[in-house]
Amino acid sequence: MIARVIVAPKPVVNDPQGATVHRALASLGFAEVSGVRIGKYVEIQLTAGSVEEASSRVEAMCRELLANQVIEDFRFEIDPGTLPRP
Amino acid sequence: MIARVIVAPKPVVNDPQGATVHRALASLGFAEVSGVRIGKYVEIQLTAGSVEEASSRVEAMCRELLANQVIEDFRFEIDPGTLPRP
Repeated sequence: MIARVIVAPKPVVNDPQGATVHRALASLGFAEVSGVRIGKYVEIQLTAGSVEEASSRVEAMCRELLANQVIEDFRFEIDPGTLPRP
Repeated sequence: MIARVIVAPKPVVNDPQGATVHRALASLGFAEVSGVRIGKYVEIQLTAGSVEEASSRVEAMCRELLANQVIEDFRFEIDPGTLPRP
């Protein structure tokens, strides 16, 4: 299975990297952009007996390592891969 | 509208950051993980007359700034926000 995890700064947290990319886009002529937030994308290949088991393991990975929950939110989806999609 | 962009290293490109996270997960007991790839997640708020227009602008942003196409792939989705989803 493949888990696709997105870890992004909470809305109330300053995001200087996003602000820098926002300014860079503006200077390239993309004036229609009103905000940019930058986070991490983590793709995890793992084996699990079921999508539910994979979800619970990936949630634990996020809490223990991938996300700093003080300043970041995370979300993920599990792609069962060769199994048929529900 | 909101564009959600994922920029990830091409499959053939070395990803030392992913390898490090893989080792860290293994040392935390997540032995079921067989691979980790790490990329960037970019959330862009922008105004556009249509989803098609937003797509074409975000594609240009990726090509000009957000992704290094020599070593990275990108993909994105446009969320029209207040408009009903198709």
